[in-house]
Amino acid sequence: MPLADANLRTRIDGRRARLEDELTGSVIPFWMKHAPDREHGGWFNCLDRDGTVWDTRKHIWLQGRAVWMLSKLHAELEPRAEFQVQAKSGAEFLRDHCRRPDRRVWFCTTREGRPVQLQRKIFSECFHVMAMAQYGRVFGETWAEKEAREVFGWVLEAINDPRLAGRPREEGEPPSKGLAVPMIVLNLIQELDGGFHGPHAAEARACAAEARRFLRRERKVVLETIAADGSDLDSPEGRLLNPGHAIEMGWFLLDYARATGDEAAAKDALDAIEWSLDRGWDQVHGGLYYFLDEKGLSPAQLEWPMKLWWPHCEALVACAKAFEHTRDRAWFERWVRVADWTFARFPDAAHGEWFGYLDRQGAVSQRFKGGPYKGFFHVPRALLLAARALGAVLEPRSFAAPETVKKT
Amino acid sequence: MPLADANLRTRIDGRRARLEDELTGSVIPFWMKHAPDREHGGWFNCLDRDGTVWDTRKHIWLQGRAVWMLSKLHAELEPRAEFQVQAKSGAEFLRDHCRRPDRRVWFCTTREGRPVQLQRKIFSECFHVMAMAQYGRVFGETWAEKEAREVFGWVLEAINDPRLAGRPREEGEPPSKGLAVPMIVLNLIQELDGGFHGPHAAEARACAAEARRFLRRERKVVLETIAADGSDLDSPEGRLLNPGHAIEMGWFLLDYARATGDEAAAKDALDAIEWSLDRGWDQVHGGLYYFLDEKGLSPAQLEWPMKLWWPHCEALVACAKAFEHTRDRAWFERWVRVADWTFARFPDAAHGEWFGYLDRQGAVSQRFKGGPYKGFFHVPRALLLAARALGAVLEPRSFAAPETVKKT
Repeated sequence: MPLADANLRTRIDGRRARLEDELTGSVIPFWMKHAPDREHGGWFNCLDRDGTVWDTRKHIWLQGRAVWMLSKLHAELEPRAEFQVQAKSGAEFLRDHCRRPDRRVWFCTTREGRPVQLQRKIFSECFHVMAMAQYGRVFGETWAEKEAREVFGWVLEAINDPRLAGRPREEGEPPSKGLAVPMIVLNLIQELDGGFHGPHAAEARACAAEARRFLRRERKVVLETIAADGSDLDSPEGRLLNPGHAIEMGWFLLDYARATGDEAAAKDALDAIEWSLDRGWDQVHGGLYYFLDEKGLSPAQLEWPMKLWWPHCEALVACAKAFEHTRDRAWFERWVRVADWTFARFPDAAHGEWFGYLDRQGAVSQRFKGGPYKGFFHVPRALLLAARALGAVLEPRSFAAPETVKKT
Repeated sequence: MPLADANLRTRIDGRRARLEDELTGSVIPFWMKHAPDREHGGWFNCLDRDGTVWDTRKHIWLQGRAVWMLSKLHAELEPRAEFQVQAKSGAEFLRDHCRRPDRRVWFCTTREGRPVQLQRKIFSECFHVMAMAQYGRVFGETWAEKEAREVFGWVLEAINDPRLAGRPREEGEPPSKGLAVPMIVLNLIQELDGGFHGPHAAEARACAAEARRFLRRERKVVLETIAADGSDLDSPEGRLLNPGHAIEMGWFLLDYARATGDEAAAKDALDAIEWSLDRGWDQVHGGLYYFLDEKGLSPAQLEWPMKLWWPHCEALVACAKAFEHTRDRAWFERWVRVADWTFARFPDAAHGEWFGYLDRQGAVSQRFKGGPYKGFFHVPRALLLAARALGAVLEPRSFAAPETVKKT
C-alpha cells in the first residue's frame, strides 16, 4: 500500500527524481559519448575523467556488463535507438571476438578483438551469459539466447570442476567455497529464465539455500569464503568480510525471496544487508570499507580501507529494495545515510559519471571513470533499480511491470 | 679516502650506529623470537604486530629470503649459532617441501609443507636459488649450491620461454619485457658466483646492459616494462613507474659497475636512483609512492599512493652506496631525507620490527609485521648494507671485506 505520510512521500519522491536525473543527465550521456568504438565495434571501457580513452584494450567483464545494461535500459527505462545500436555492437563484438569454441571467454582483448588474456576464473563467462541472455530477450535475438545457454553450460561444469578454469586445487589447500558462486548463478538463472520459475527453478532454489549458508547469525556477519562442508575456515580467507558483496547478495536473495514468497529467505536477505551495512561502515570517515577481517586483524588486501563506488551502489539498491519490501521507514533512513555520503563524493559534476576509487578519507584516489573493473554497469544499474524501488513505495503499481514479468 | 669534515663524520657515524642498533636490537630479535616453526621447520612469515602468527601457511618467497638473510648475517654481521640453526631449518624445509622434481618451486605451502599454490611467475624459484646459493657458500653445504644451480637452470629456461611458468603470451599481447628479469638474474649471478667474475660473467654483463635499456635519459625516468625491441610501449604498462624497484635496480647495477670498473654503468646506476627518488617522492606528504604513471594518469593499481616499507629500504641502501661510491655529500643529504621520513614512521618501538604498509599520509594501514610479501628480508638487508656503506665512507677498509670477496 502507498505511504500516507506526506512529508515522507515528498522526501522519497525527491530522492527518486535525483536518481533518475543522475542516470539520464550524467551517467548515460558520459558513456554514450565516449565509450562506443565506432570503428571496431564494442565499447572502450578504460575512460579517463573527461572520457579520454587511456587504454584501448577491451576488458570483457565490462563489455558483457555494458551489453546487459544497454538492453535493460532499452526495456525498462525507455526504448532508444542508440541503446539498441550499442547493445548490438557490443553483443556482436562478444560473439565474434571474445567467446572461444571451447565456450571459454577471454578476459581482455585488443581494440580489434585479438586475445590478450584469459583469467583462471569463471566471471568473463558469467558476464557473457548475462549479456547474451538479456540482449537476446529484449531484442528477440535467438542466437544470443542460444549463446547464453551454451556458455552457461560451461559455467555449471566449471563450478563443479575448477580445473576447467585452469586453476587446480593443490593438495594442501582446504576445500572451500566462495559466496560469489551461488550469487552469480542465481543472478544468471534470473536472466536466462526471466525469473525464478523457469527451467532452472530447482537450481535457483539450491543457489538461494547455498548463499544463505554464508550467514553467521550468532555473529551477525556474512562470510566471503567457507569450508566445503559449510563450516568456518580458520584462515585469513575464512575471516574475510566484503561488505559490498554481502549487500549485493542480500538484494539478489531478496529478489528471489519476493518472487517465490520465501519468507525465511527474505529475513536472511534483510539481515545480511543490515549486518553488512553496520559492520562495513567506517565510523570515522563514513562510507563502506572494501574488506574487513572478522576478528579485527589487518586484511592482507592493501586496498581494504578504500571506498569503492560499487559497494555503495549495491547499498543504494539493497536499502531501497528492503524499504520497498518492508515499508519500514528505518530502511529509508539507512538509504539516506548511504546516499548522502555517496552523492557528496562519487559523482563528477564537471564531466559526468562517477569516480570509482576513493581513499579511506573519501578523496579521489583514481581519477578515471572506467577501467579494467569499472564500466557501464554498477552506477546505472543502481540508479535504475533504486529509483524503481523508491517509486514503487509511492505508487505500488507504477513501476511494477518488469518485476511482474520476472516473477511469472 | 676518509672524510676530513669532523662534523659530517660525527653525523654519519651516528646514523650508522642507529642502523646497527635497529638491526640488532629490534629487527633480528623480533624474527628470532616469533618466526621459527620449531615443530615443522622453516619460518612462519605471517606475523601480526606483536609477533602472533596470523596465518600458519608458509609463503616461499619469504622462506627463501629468510634463509638468505640468516646466512648473510652469519657471514657478515657476526657468526651466531641461532643464525645457523634457523638457516638450516629453512633451507631443509625448502629442499624437502618446496622444490618440485621438475625444478619448479611452490609459492605457498601449509605449515607442514603440503602444496597450496604455484604462481605463474619465476620468483619463487629465484628466491630459492638466492637462498641455496648463499646458504651453501656460507655453511659449506655443497648440496645447497648444487640445488641453487639446478633451479637457476630452470629460471634461465623460463625467461626464454614464458610458457614454462604456465602463462603463455596470447596473440594480441605485444611482446614486452620487464625490468625485474635482468635485475634478478644479475643478483642471482652475484649470489651463485660470489661476484661478477665467475662462470656467469658474460651473462652478468648482458643483464647489466639489459637493465640499462629501461632508462630514458631524455625524460629522466626508469620504465618498468618496455617493448621486446627496447622501444616504449604505448599502454598503461609502458607508462608505469615503480620508483622503489628502479632504485633497487640502481644499487644492483652500482654493485656491478664498481666490481667491474664500468664507469658508464655506474653513471646510469646513479642517475636511475636520483631520477626515481625525485620523481617518486610525494611532495605533499613525503615518502615514496608505490606506483606512478609517467604521463600523470592514475595508475590502475589501487595501492599506487601507499608508502610501502621496501621502496624506502631500497632507497636507504641505494643512497648510502651512492655516497660511498661518489663521496658526494649530496648523496648523504638525500639519504638523511629518506631516513628521517622512514625512521619516523615505519619502526614499531613497542614490539620491534617495522610496519610494512602505510597510507599516502604515512599512517599505518596494515598492522602486521610479516605477510605473504613481507618477511625477514628488506629491513635487515637495508640496515646491514646501509650501515656498511656509511661505515666505509668513514673508514674505507673497516667494512670492506665482504665486498672484496664478492668482487674477486
